[in-house]
Amino acid sequence: MTPAIPRLSSHLDETDVDGYLVDAAGDDSTQYYLSGYHAPDEFVTLYADGAVAVLVSPLEYTRAKTDSDADDVRNYAEFGYREKAARMDPRRAQKLVTVEFLADYGVESVAVPVSFPTGTADLLREHGVAVTADFDYVVADEVRAVKSDRELEHVRQTQQANEVALAEVEGLLERASVADGVLHLDGDVLTSERVRRRIERTLLEEDCAMDQCIVASGPSAARAHDSGSGPLEADVPIVVDVFPRHKETRYFGDVTRTFVKGEPTDQVEEWYDRTVEAYEAALDAIEAGVSGAAVNDAVCDVFEDAGYPTLRTHDSPEDGFFHSTGHGVGLDVHEAPYLAENAGDLEAGHVVTVEPGLYEQGTGGVRLEDLVVVTEDGYENLTDYPRDLRVV
Amino acid sequence: MTPAIPRLSSHLDETDVDGYLVDAAGDDSTQYYLSGYHAPDEFVTLYADGAVAVLVSPLEYTRAKTDSDADDVRNYAEFGYREKAARMDPRRAQKLVTVEFLADYGVESVAVPVSFPTGTADLLREHGVAVTADFDYVVADEVRAVKSDRELEHVRQTQQANEVALAEVEGLLERASVADGVLHLDGDVLTSERVRRRIERTLLEEDCAMDQCIVASGPSAARAHDSGSGPLEADVPIVVDVFPRHKETRYFGDVTRTFVKGEPTDQVEEWYDRTVEAYEAALDAIEAGVSGAAVNDAVCDVFEDAGYPTLRTHDSPEDGFFHSTGHGVGLDVHEAPYLAENAGDLEAGHVVTVEPGLYEQGTGGVRLEDLVVVTEDGYENLTDYPRDLRVV
Repeated sequence: MTPAIPRLSSHLDETDVDGYLVDAAGDDSTQYYLSGYHAPDEFVTLYADGAVAVLVSPLEYTRAKTDSDADDVRNYAEFGYREKAARMDPRRAQKLVTVEFLADYGVESVAVPVSFPTGTADLLREHGVAVTADFDYVVADEVRAVKSDRELEHVRQTQQANEVALAEVEGLLERASVADGVLHLDGDVLTSERVRRRIERTLLEEDCAMDQCIVASGPSAARAHDSGSGPLEADVPIVVDVFPRHKETRYFGDVTRTFVKGEPTDQVEEWYDRTVEAYEAALDAIEAGVSGAAVNDAVCDVFEDAGYPTLRTHDSPEDGFFHSTGHGVGLDVHEAPYLAENAGDLEAGHVVTVEPGLYEQGTGGVRLEDLVVVTEDGYENLTDYPRDLRVV
Repeated sequence: MTPAIPRLSSHLDETDVDGYLVDAAGDDSTQYYLSGYHAPDEFVTLYADGAVAVLVSPLEYTRAKTDSDADDVRNYAEFGYREKAARMDPRRAQKLVTVEFLADYGVESVAVPVSFPTGTADLLREHGVAVTADFDYVVADEVRAVKSDRELEHVRQTQQANEVALAEVEGLLERASVADGVLHLDGDVLTSERVRRRIERTLLEEDCAMDQCIVASGPSAARAHDSGSGPLEADVPIVVDVFPRHKETRYFGDVTRTFVKGEPTDQVEEWYDRTVEAYEAALDAIEAGVSGAAVNDAVCDVFEDAGYPTLRTHDSPEDGFFHSTGHGVGLDVHEAPYLAENAGDLEAGHVVTVEPGLYEQGTGGVRLEDLVVVTEDGYENLTDYPRDLRVV
């Protein structure tokens, strides 16, 4: 049984709708948050009158009854699914079953996530249910963004796995030798791919899975979300950005360190010093009641004062600080709140990355990222890993 | 550059809409299929006039230009994103940018996947764009379901990784000893969790990642999608169902074998014999032009003749054959076409699982699953792994 969610209940009261409805893939984070259930296939979750009901296929029914936190588990079969599926595409029949499921709970109007399926919304509307896409993002911004102690433990646990992975990477870099400007280890060239595989294997031992991670040196470090490939070079920054999900709890962690094996150039040392300064400015700014925009401004101030472009000074900069300062982390790796232009106020319990960086297309870049939880009078850092640039 | 997709173009012509629009998470399969692009964050893909355009955030722009297959890569910044985001929630501003993006291509009406975000659909409609949820599932059923030779190679590669993992599991079971009815290996109890981790590590070496997999013995084998936990028992069936995704190609494989370490009961032998019979009946039935329903009927006939409940005889059976015969596999692990009641005709190039099984709640179950590609006059099995129940 899930406890009622006061912020969601009062939002529904204020906007005068009967329920909050999710119809999503079985791995959708909001659905998991509300139902405690995770499945290979789509299902439906309704929050109404302070209770949660899920609607699943017959195939999921047995497991959902024992594994979900829902107060009620209902089955397509109860709502004439078979008879409908004989008349129309079974996927459309599934959506129509949702109409009857809502009627069974007396729900005539629903708020839905912005991402709610248009196909379902249109069918519900055809059948007289009022459907409003929630552009207030109440579940994402007000409910999920504020973590409980148990959720903080989950994030902390994944972040600790990240630290184990970083230590593993730093060990590889320490043991590596340099020949022709390229790193070698145990008789082979040390590549992005090889380090990435080692990270993944390490995370697996910590019960974490990663979809992607970044191990990028040279120009690829300056391309946002470039994973990096090929031999790692000496004397240039290697950006290592790891953001796995714990396989049991499903909570993410997120960390970045930049390493130079050998001698960084003066330019890179300067980039890194400014990045550390910006990182410290962000942390100094963070506390409950301060806006995410103000934290981002603190970072941009540092970079702009040193002459680098930011998103405040340029519409779409390719060099300098071309991204925002941070984002929330939880059941999604990118979620509310945001440390970015126009972003709203931080609350105690928000978990955010702080990840300033400086880049130059064609050359490379540096980034430093910790994960912190906002408190009433500041923050607690969930990350405990050294920030040294040079690997000896 | 992506080649035009004749089936999609003619569907748009027939339904008299200008384009097909996707607005989804960066890992959405239809979006990846159309754009060849995979990102951590949401983006937008438009198919119109036989060409593909993507709309990405400034952060993704540099990488999307080089990594995507799109004919055109556009950037929020081109459509006044910053000015909009200063006036409203940036996530709403992103959706509004899509309105201008469509206008730039002269697109006034779009078909969208059923899963298309309601929030985006509502905003587009407010701005005069006609949005129709495509309940014909044209991209899923007609385009993505029919695999090219290159896609078949991708599926085959993942399925081969599955076979390596199964061999690893069977090796563990062979080497295991039995004490007090429970399997032991290398001095420790052999658990579902331990085998699952070995599978994951093996798949990782094959460049594949799994979110979940099933290693279930005893009653948990009878609960659909139960992953299994705790010590593996001797003399009872252990269902091993593995469905990883290749990390580079993003195509899935899917295979199931059932193993008994020791002596199966007569009941389990009978279940397995009937399951093999049903599996062979399904394969005999498969060819282009035959309906997925007919293949499913062939399996249900075998089970019903032997006295077991199926979805044809019971609305929501918990015992017997309580699921359908199979599903498509590609960029999603469950996709069109389906081998199930009311399912439509198979085409050459469809990739489907064939996975009959028999179960009894409280006792356990058996399942056998291969992955095959439909051909004009039959099928080619993409799976090459023995189907022996007993592990000596």
